[in-house]
Amino acid sequence: MGHEFDLQIQVDAAGDGRYRADLADGWRVGGGLNGGYLLSVIGNAISTALPGKPDPITMSAYFLSPAAPGPATVEVDVRREGGRVATVAADLRQGDAARITTLATYGDLSGADTGVRTTAAEIDLPPLEECVSNDFAPPEVKKMAPLMDRFDMRFHPDQVGWAVGAPSGRGELSAWFRLVDGREPDPIGLLMVVDALPPVTLDLGQMGWAPTMELTVHVRARPAPGWLKVRHVTRNVAGGMFEEDCEVWDSAGRLVAQSRQLALLPRTGS
Amino acid sequence: MGHEFDLQIQVDAAGDGRYRADLADGWRVGGGLNGGYLLSVIGNAISTALPGKPDPITMSAYFLSPAAPGPATVEVDVRREGGRVATVAADLRQGDAARITTLATYGDLSGADTGVRTTAAEIDLPPLEECVSNDFAPPEVKKMAPLMDRFDMRFHPDQVGWAVGAPSGRGELSAWFRLVDGREPDPIGLLMVVDALPPVTLDLGQMGWAPTMELTVHVRARPAPGWLKVRHVTRNVAGGMFEEDCEVWDSAGRLVAQSRQLALLPRTGS
Repeated sequence: MGHEFDLQIQVDAAGDGRYRADLADGWRVGGGLNGGYLLSVIGNAISTALPGKPDPITMSAYFLSPAAPGPATVEVDVRREGGRVATVAADLRQGDAARITTLATYGDLSGADTGVRTTAAEIDLPPLEECVSNDFAPPEVKKMAPLMDRFDMRFHPDQVGWAVGAPSGRGELSAWFRLVDGREPDPIGLLMVVDALPPVTLDLGQMGWAPTMELTVHVRARPAPGWLKVRHVTRNVAGGMFEEDCEVWDSAGRLVAQSRQLALLPRTGS
Repeated sequence: MGHEFDLQIQVDAAGDGRYRADLADGWRVGGGLNGGYLLSVIGNAISTALPGKPDPITMSAYFLSPAAPGPATVEVDVRREGGRVATVAADLRQGDAARITTLATYGDLSGADTGVRTTAAEIDLPPLEECVSNDFAPPEVKKMAPLMDRFDMRFHPDQVGWAVGAPSGRGELSAWFRLVDGREPDPIGLLMVVDALPPVTLDLGQMGWAPTMELTVHVRARPAPGWLKVRHVTRNVAGGMFEEDCEVWDSAGRLVAQSRQLALLPRTGS
């Protein structure tokens, strides 16, 4: 224990399905805190509220206003419990302000390894040493995204042209991923991982951070320890919005999380 | 007006964000009513509750218990309004029983046609007359899914092997789609369309209906009148569950809806 990430997502029961959290300054990005980090905080509160059902299976989050570092409350309302899964509504609030509202179904993913049939192709990444570390991110990206200091990311060398003004235009970003504090991935951590990479719109030449409207993640298995492979893809930019599909594969070569978010295009030039 | 579908999704305001509906018997499938139909009912109530924001942009639904034909209530709780979009929580109930709980963001999709950049490939379907009508569905499928009588579907001839005991094993189903009552597609109707085709697991040789746990749909544009093209794909069966991605393209060749659901595998042999 004692990993930074576990301390940053810690929650304390305050009765009546309420949990207190202290949102960490280190997860700032753009004008708020990273959505994936906030989902891990919410997800940790739900896990605490549901004995015997520790793992998120699916969570849908709607982002209402940017969160700020400091005290916050997660309110968990169980909508259905019984059998192998439970469904809850959970809201993250700071004072009077609603930050995120979610729905989620939880269960126990241990022993869910039987009958796997994956036709999706594992993310194709060169070896670590041939990939590009986030240490090399341009200063304007680092300034916009202090949360990158939490991550050890190694980007596919064919997908980092955006960092030098030459985006590929394909709408794809992929990277090796782990937390710098050495904390191993687990289902609660995956809620953060699916929103950790920069927006895929960088690869379309649209610099700037992209506010998430909605994000749904399916956790399909408990990840093995070690490096994760993460990929963001978009295939439809329209009406000032784009969808961003994310896959996360673990070190055992298994597809452990699938997510999709709908986000607003970055403001031009920002 | 006077289309059957509009009558079946009709809601009447009952005050305090509550709307009464009468769920139609014709949408039965397996042991309940079709989830997509129920989303259109909920979506219609939300649209009524939000003047000036008629269109679902994204909706996430968690299925709590099977719905039955007859009276139901939709309760709409506005979580955030202001600016171009509004976010609500909406629940479908029958008596004391919660059927579906949703979150949704609504806006106005008219005039959202600017700046479309779609790299997704349009669904590849042979001409209508070379496709296979749902009139030819096996009797056991028709018995399991009376809702098919609402639809005029023309399946890709390479993807109907499951109907004669020879599924392709690829995990893909696609079809031309329209309502038999002649009602044209619109954003509220698309909430139904993304859950209208049989489960993609038929193409994996798993007969039987597949209960949806969670479904999120993004409506990306108002569809043009005419036939729609619809495709279901799964790429990851694991832990007794599978994801089903759906795309809907309109007659103008535009990607108008993207959805993903997490569903339980059908019980073997059912």
